[in-house]
Amino acid sequence: MKLVSFAASGRSSYGAVVGGGIFDLGRRLGDRYPTLRAAIAGDAIAQFAAESADAKPDLTLAQAALLAPITDPDKIICAGRNYRAHAAEAGGPPPDHPQVFLRLVNTLVAHGQPMVCPRISGDFDYEGELALVIGKPGRHIAKADALSHVFGYTLFNDGSIRDIQFKHSIAAGKNFHATGGFGPVIVTADEIPDPTRLHLATRLNGREVQHTGIDDLIFDIPTLISYCSQWTPLVAGDVISTGTPEGVGFARKPPLWMKPGDVVEVEVAEIGVLRNPIVAES
Amino acid sequence: MKLVSFAASGRSSYGAVVGGGIFDLGRRLGDRYPTLRAAIAGDAIAQFAAESADAKPDLTLAQAALLAPITDPDKIICAGRNYRAHAAEAGGPPPDHPQVFLRLVNTLVAHGQPMVCPRISGDFDYEGELALVIGKPGRHIAKADALSHVFGYTLFNDGSIRDIQFKHSIAAGKNFHATGGFGPVIVTADEIPDPTRLHLATRLNGREVQHTGIDDLIFDIPTLISYCSQWTPLVAGDVISTGTPEGVGFARKPPLWMKPGDVVEVEVAEIGVLRNPIVAES
Repeated sequence: MKLVSFAASGRSSYGAVVGGGIFDLGRRLGDRYPTLRAAIAGDAIAQFAAESADAKPDLTLAQAALLAPITDPDKIICAGRNYRAHAAEAGGPPPDHPQVFLRLVNTLVAHGQPMVCPRISGDFDYEGELALVIGKPGRHIAKADALSHVFGYTLFNDGSIRDIQFKHSIAAGKNFHATGGFGPVIVTADEIPDPTRLHLATRLNGREVQHTGIDDLIFDIPTLISYCSQWTPLVAGDVISTGTPEGVGFARKPPLWMKPGDVVEVEVAEIGVLRNPIVAES
Repeated sequence: MKLVSFAASGRSSYGAVVGGGIFDLGRRLGDRYPTLRAAIAGDAIAQFAAESADAKPDLTLAQAALLAPITDPDKIICAGRNYRAHAAEAGGPPPDHPQVFLRLVNTLVAHGQPMVCPRISGDFDYEGELALVIGKPGRHIAKADALSHVFGYTLFNDGSIRDIQFKHSIAAGKNFHATGGFGPVIVTADEIPDPTRLHLATRLNGREVQHTGIDDLIFDIPTLISYCSQWTPLVAGDVISTGTPEGVGFARKPPLWMKPGDVVEVEVAEIGVLRNPIVAES
């Protein structure tokens, strides 16, 4: 099942993609579960899935403006340097432990919405990534149990302001307002039993700039979930983005930066395409 | 004025400290402003302050369990290496730019609540800090205007798991669940027109381990606010903790770690004492 959060007719909602349109779950469940995160936490999506074989769309995809698939995550954890070839292009040996950082919710925009090149820097880089959304909460999760905590998978563009990231701090360079992409949909984990078989591509203005198999992750998805749960209680709707492969702009000679007017896409065939235009900060 | 968030009679609320007790603002304003953050954003505190000369307490401080003064901040930004002597003890030259990282809300406990030494590490270090709470939202705030965006000041113990921080990542080392302290009260900015005159002390089991004047900050409060607003929209209730002075545990020989049974305190005379016992993770 594919799930979206969306706005239509001046209202925010969420639903399932069925028959080329959206079955509006928020209209039916919103009093109890105001957001997709709340519906996941309340196990309402699984219940719908069991009863939804003949659900008809309430609106077309064209009638909806997609929102970030989880609009109100408690936390967004990102893995850095988590593909071998990317760790090498970024400099230094591959890490011995997962390297993580946090992003604020306001740093992310939905599919189709503009990613904003900030006033104070032009070093705006893409990072196509596979992200997972937690369904079942947990702490100290064993690797062997970790995939059972995944609600589904989505795409992430961990847009980064490189001069600030490298000269100031990771947190600042990764947390400029509206510099990341998130979406378009969440594909539930039952449809992706083995995420290592997925392939990820990033395109800038149609040119492929990153391409990898998810099986090339240094720390795989069970390891990342188990690791994060050692220090934080994972809850429904938490987002863990698994890291970007080689081909980022800063490692190229000359560097390849995203500029206003560009279009960046992240694609996993089983999930879809996350497409964002680049605009200048107003 | 001193403000607190608290729980009493099974209800969460917030109020002003008056006459040795609490004037329960949440009871009066909670329908419109469910949390202190919302009341700050709605300018309801300033309105109360103008009308409150003869407010009588509704409950004693002993009747209330303090909560984190802001229970639902949109973001918690911390400055690292922001005192010269601490930057030196931590190694390397003082930074050329503010160095920031983010903490999750679940990493912080209120005054009086236990800070939790995690299962997977004993390298649990204190960092006494002065923190500010944003009142007026803003982006690209000029240094000269920055103090007008401060609602008030509070105390912060940026508890850190040092082996994880140094060997894995800052984000993981700074984001273990319930490892930081926050409170006890927010003192409104009108009572602290010049925060550089404050003095901060940290005590572990009664022994003073850190002591500094806030005038020793490398990047002062207006600079930190202006800097953060270059990359993120600051909103009411945002917390910026200004960094810790020298005397942290990891820089001592031998290192001084917090252990279950210890009590750690952070004090600024004009604000109060933030006191937390240390417990082992259950």
